[in-house]
Amino acid sequence: MSLRFEVAATTPEGGRRAGLHLPHGTVQTPVFMPVGTAATVKAVPHEMLEHLGPNNTAPDILLANTYHLYLRPGHQTIRRLGGLHHYMSWPRPLLTDSGGFQVFSLAKLRKITPEGVEFRSHLDGSAHFFSPEHSIEVQIALGADILMAFDECVETPATHERTRDSMALTHAWALRSKACFDAHKHEVPWTTDLGAPGLASETWDVAPHQPLAGRTQSLFGIVQGGMYADLRRESALRLVEMDFDGYAIGGLAVGEPREVTREMIARTLELLPAGKPRYVMGVGYPDEIEEYARMGVDMMDCVLPTRAARHGLLFRAPQSGEELSMPRPVSSEDPPETEPETASRTAVRMNIKRLEYAEDQRPIDPTCSCLVCRRYTRAYLRHLFMAKEPLGPTLNSIHNLAFYLNIMSRVRADLAK
Amino acid sequence: MSLRFEVAATTPEGGRRAGLHLPHGTVQTPVFMPVGTAATVKAVPHEMLEHLGPNNTAPDILLANTYHLYLRPGHQTIRRLGGLHHYMSWPRPLLTDSGGFQVFSLAKLRKITPEGVEFRSHLDGSAHFFSPEHSIEVQIALGADILMAFDECVETPATHERTRDSMALTHAWALRSKACFDAHKHEVPWTTDLGAPGLASETWDVAPHQPLAGRTQSLFGIVQGGMYADLRRESALRLVEMDFDGYAIGGLAVGEPREVTREMIARTLELLPAGKPRYVMGVGYPDEIEEYARMGVDMMDCVLPTRAARHGLLFRAPQSGEELSMPRPVSSEDPPETEPETASRTAVRMNIKRLEYAEDQRPIDPTCSCLVCRRYTRAYLRHLFMAKEPLGPTLNSIHNLAFYLNIMSRVRADLAK
Repeated sequence: MSLRFEVAATTPEGGRRAGLHLPHGTVQTPVFMPVGTAATVKAVPHEMLEHLGPNNTAPDILLANTYHLYLRPGHQTIRRLGGLHHYMSWPRPLLTDSGGFQVFSLAKLRKITPEGVEFRSHLDGSAHFFSPEHSIEVQIALGADILMAFDECVETPATHERTRDSMALTHAWALRSKACFDAHKHEVPWTTDLGAPGLASETWDVAPHQPLAGRTQSLFGIVQGGMYADLRRESALRLVEMDFDGYAIGGLAVGEPREVTREMIARTLELLPAGKPRYVMGVGYPDEIEEYARMGVDMMDCVLPTRAARHGLLFRAPQSGEELSMPRPVSSEDPPETEPETASRTAVRMNIKRLEYAEDQRPIDPTCSCLVCRRYTRAYLRHLFMAKEPLGPTLNSIHNLAFYLNIMSRVRADLAK
Repeated sequence: MSLRFEVAATTPEGGRRAGLHLPHGTVQTPVFMPVGTAATVKAVPHEMLEHLGPNNTAPDILLANTYHLYLRPGHQTIRRLGGLHHYMSWPRPLLTDSGGFQVFSLAKLRKITPEGVEFRSHLDGSAHFFSPEHSIEVQIALGADILMAFDECVETPATHERTRDSMALTHAWALRSKACFDAHKHEVPWTTDLGAPGLASETWDVAPHQPLAGRTQSLFGIVQGGMYADLRRESALRLVEMDFDGYAIGGLAVGEPREVTREMIARTLELLPAGKPRYVMGVGYPDEIEEYARMGVDMMDCVLPTRAARHGLLFRAPQSGEELSMPRPVSSEDPPETEPETASRTAVRMNIKRLEYAEDQRPIDPTCSCLVCRRYTRAYLRHLFMAKEPLGPTLNSIHNLAFYLNIMSRVRADLAK
């Protein structure tokens, strides 16, 4: 058995409150998944990650990047050491992407054929080849609870013809991904012994999970089709025919206007089966994740809260009227360092570098109860940032992730009403 | 009242087990003080620092650097915000150095006169002047429990004449430091309200401390005299005449052979009053801090455990016979990155970068119960280091500090027998 998805409540707008039961635990959805690219949520110790959610809880699920882990330390190393959960000492659910997006965005000298993608490592220039089969092999070795089919990400903007051709390749690769997964899905690297030799598993701050024997990973397909509603429709229908465990919507939030992102999501969601999880990849700003969750998106991930944190950009709840007095955020892309402070209904984005915070004794967000806001002042956080102290990115990341997880907690409560 | 020093037990070798009662709490000595240069122990969140000592305890005392905090964020900012404890949200004892060592080692274009030192900031080249009076003013504004007199650190090697002249300057500055301190020691920045506005002080993981009303900081003098026993003697006698709250031995572990360091410490200790704390600044390797503690040194500090950690150098207990089969560490200076793995009776120094650790499932030290060794494998720590993930320095620093604090805990238990 792979996953079980139980919808507990649905709203007229399409939003749903559900439980996603995976081999390493249950994920309460809608969920925002923190990104742990190289088997660590950048700058955040596990011990603090485990307490940054609402009521001192851990995130239900993290995302890790297949491309990065394939290059370093290598998927065979991780397989030999019992899989990613064991390797990184994170016993809760994990999801890996297919590596496709990173091959297209990070790697050098790519050559795409129907067979797969030749590329050179961004680390050392070494030559590599990823096919759908190879991506699945790597992801099975990593052993996350959820795998993603290997897809092509089309550049933006792209013509209808170019987008259609790319989508056709993605569909062919999705079929091959699924065939390979079905043939090998019992080859999980999981050990029933969660503790490493010499490590006391009782220190893992998690209840004993269900037995892993007989459990398998799950595979999600990825809907593509660029910014063309007809292609998105065709892609969704084609993927649903292939019968994946869940469906992602890829290729969005790559520079297009937010209205287009929303429209593509809405048109696609209505074509996906209600009984399976729906995942929008790589979004977004606080108000976006809230909006998409209310539309019926069950899962989202984004580097934005942690990457922004490392740039000194912190999210907090707007005070009364504040969202009207500040400029609105304009784009779903990563914020440049010089971007002004902005506000939406969901969040104000603060730039902790500003001199005005140098002697500000308030926490980042007086309404936030995260471990950073309970203890540290804006003045101290600004000092850490200006002094380039590693504690700055750590505390900033913890707060931003807590802010994101709190949004989803609030939305889940609303959806369950 | 400033400090109270209660010796509970003394050994024939001169070692002593004592309690050092300070305004912000009691320090069990002998103690190793982690260095928090810029109001943060580099890369270690407070929440983990509070649990890295034996039995999940916090370090009794941290050291912060006056030079760094004077330049950034500025001592007046920290005074206005209630002092360093409040500013950095660390309610336990703190010690600040005088800034002298950093002025002589980090700052540029120094000009030394009997009045003080002109220098340029290593951050932005701006011009500054430190005198004994200014150092004390800055340290009172920072508000640590213990301050250090402003001293000159002579270069190494230095002639007898040059060392004697430098020592004379240090003595003159010590007198001026003490006069300034005595005149201003009631000007502490401490507030009785440890919680910042909007911050819940109950989240500070510490028992309520004694009332601060009427308490003052304490001032230590610094014995100099380079590598000359006659000058060390003269300096110790002169400093004791001046009647400080405690005495430091400075200017050691600056490249001299370890036997010379030990000899200078031994010759000086016998001249210092038994009823006051004795502090050797800037040492050392694990076997050094153990040895000096058993000789009667009550306090030590060093960046070595945290700096080595950031270079991937980890300390662990030697296994039986291992200290004989590996080269001995040779110097008390900071380890270069390429230094081989070494062993002494007290510690093996591992280089986590080595390929041999890539699939090593053991914790750093199977005999260590720190939070890193309870959870993470050498394989994962090597991966974090190779991938330059910020979690690597964090976990490495936590383990090395835990290793140092465990040594001192063991020595304290032995001294109390």
